[in-house]
Amino acid sequence: MAEAPQSATTRAHSNIAFVKYWGNRDNRLRLPANASISMNLADLHTTTTVAWDSALREDELTIDGAAAADPALKRVGDHLDMLRARFDDRRFARVSSSNNFPMGTGIASSASAFAALTMAACAALGIEPAERELSALARLGSGSAARSIPAGFVEWLPGESHESSFARSFAPPEHWDLVDIIAIVSREHKRTGSSAGHQTADTSVLQQSRLRSADERFRMVKAAILRRDFEQFADIVEEDSNLMHAVMMTSKPPLFYWEPVSLEIMKAVRHWRQADNLRVCYTLDAGPNVHCICAAGDADIVEKRLRSLSSALDIRRSAAGGGAQVLPADY
Amino acid sequence: MAEAPQSATTRAHSNIAFVKYWGNRDNRLRLPANASISMNLADLHTTTTVAWDSALREDELTIDGAAAADPALKRVGDHLDMLRARFDDRRFARVSSSNNFPMGTGIASSASAFAALTMAACAALGIEPAERELSALARLGSGSAARSIPAGFVEWLPGESHESSFARSFAPPEHWDLVDIIAIVSREHKRTGSSAGHQTADTSVLQQSRLRSADERFRMVKAAILRRDFEQFADIVEEDSNLMHAVMMTSKPPLFYWEPVSLEIMKAVRHWRQADNLRVCYTLDAGPNVHCICAAGDADIVEKRLRSLSSALDIRRSAAGGGAQVLPADY
Repeated sequence: MAEAPQSATTRAHSNIAFVKYWGNRDNRLRLPANASISMNLADLHTTTTVAWDSALREDELTIDGAAAADPALKRVGDHLDMLRARFDDRRFARVSSSNNFPMGTGIASSASAFAALTMAACAALGIEPAERELSALARLGSGSAARSIPAGFVEWLPGESHESSFARSFAPPEHWDLVDIIAIVSREHKRTGSSAGHQTADTSVLQQSRLRSADERFRMVKAAILRRDFEQFADIVEEDSNLMHAVMMTSKPPLFYWEPVSLEIMKAVRHWRQADNLRVCYTLDAGPNVHCICAAGDADIVEKRLRSLSSALDIRRSAAGGGAQVLPADY
Repeated sequence: MAEAPQSATTRAHSNIAFVKYWGNRDNRLRLPANASISMNLADLHTTTTVAWDSALREDELTIDGAAAADPALKRVGDHLDMLRARFDDRRFARVSSSNNFPMGTGIASSASAFAALTMAACAALGIEPAERELSALARLGSGSAARSIPAGFVEWLPGESHESSFARSFAPPEHWDLVDIIAIVSREHKRTGSSAGHQTADTSVLQQSRLRSADERFRMVKAAILRRDFEQFADIVEEDSNLMHAVMMTSKPPLFYWEPVSLEIMKAVRHWRQADNLRVCYTLDAGPNVHCICAAGDADIVEKRLRSLSSALDIRRSAAGGGAQVLPADY
């Protein structure tokens, strides 16, 4: 007779990187080529329920209410295989996941998704790994998911092995009231996903230069966050975003994630900061959406200006958020 | 009694670089940090008359029919100072220059201008320097002017001294019937001119990588031109343009020459080549205008498609052009 399924529900937040992760030193283990820094986004999250069920003959996956097929199902199944092997359990799982933001548009849905999945899979087994272990396990599903486990402002040091490559918080969400105003330029699914993209990073003649200078930007951005120094923060965050996209655009084949309106917003943001002294800067992940990072006091005017740039833009707004968490059983 | 003025009129063509010049190893002598390749543009030219006149108390400059002031007058005066010193003549000059294309929009007006000026200044003195010497002298006025002296497809090897840094033709204009269709995105004068821009190149962490890989692109583009291999030509020309703009966008302060519509055209051109097999690729100099380099057989359809992208675009078209030349006295 089959046992009752074991289940748990978790929630993890998306995160926006201020010093970007692009390229791996080990693609299989997703050991990153450089250290990165991010902030969790309180208002963008994935909620995931995992039920291990001995009655299942294969894994089942529902995303936003619809049954998911490959490649999403395959990727989740591979991650569950890894967890099954690690925790010596042969059961398949029923996974149900929902995002409160559009997937695959450069808002890092795989980050929050694999953070929530990893934590739910463990919790459903009654396992509570240490945060660093959970972060490392999430990393195996999606590199940046490592950063969606800890709370607030997060650093991910590359490490040299599975165990040593994990993210940790260096300041809680309430440390600095930054706001991310996201101009959603496109809801279309990316043609080249991040996982495939990372593997092209080394085909750009610029990647090594980006990497050699990344530690310096890491130190400066972390220091700027700790001092709440918006001016230093802004210049380096924009430079780091430009560097990652420079590598992408010079890879073989080139990856152009920027859309014309992305560029328009980037130029406007820079102008608002320099000509009008608004505390705002831009950063773009592997997609066309522009994350406008602002001091809370300037967020309303930045949002208003973004809306007047283009009435067609969908805009999301989020403060810094906490870490991944298990939700109560009656959620 | 004053002698009669000595005068000459010349014409030099603009050129479009396929392997870009960006950054100097010696800013004063304008010795470039890397070798570059360009094609002269038959239908975009500057016509310049220089009259050395012992009655003048200072240099006079007219551009497109209007008296020019600083900084143009100063820059021309400095160039004439250099020529006066070199040829041991103390007279001032009356310079009249006209372009058949808008200045300062990333169509290299300084290239054709300083090529025509240098040749006219010499011719008016009755001096006919060898082409390589004329190219080197033009270089002192504007680096890329060195490439507007020789005919057709031109290479500029960096050299290590004034005398050894000159451009030369490696194929005549009729070697390959490429057409440059220029989408003129903006007629506004650039906020940061090329001379100032070159001096910021080393502030990008990417410039050294661009330079280290430039010789390889130089060899491959030259070989592709000699073989008339559009496919190899296209990928490297676009990569080289992207690399230069990557350096610009990551300089301190960043230089963003691309406009949203530039990016739109770049993406369209790449799509036309890859999805529709049109022989066209893009390259952008230090400005927002997009040079669409095409095989002659595909030029009409490319032009038509560009016009349908945006009816507001001004479009210029040019085949490969000859070298700088002295015009007949009765021009």
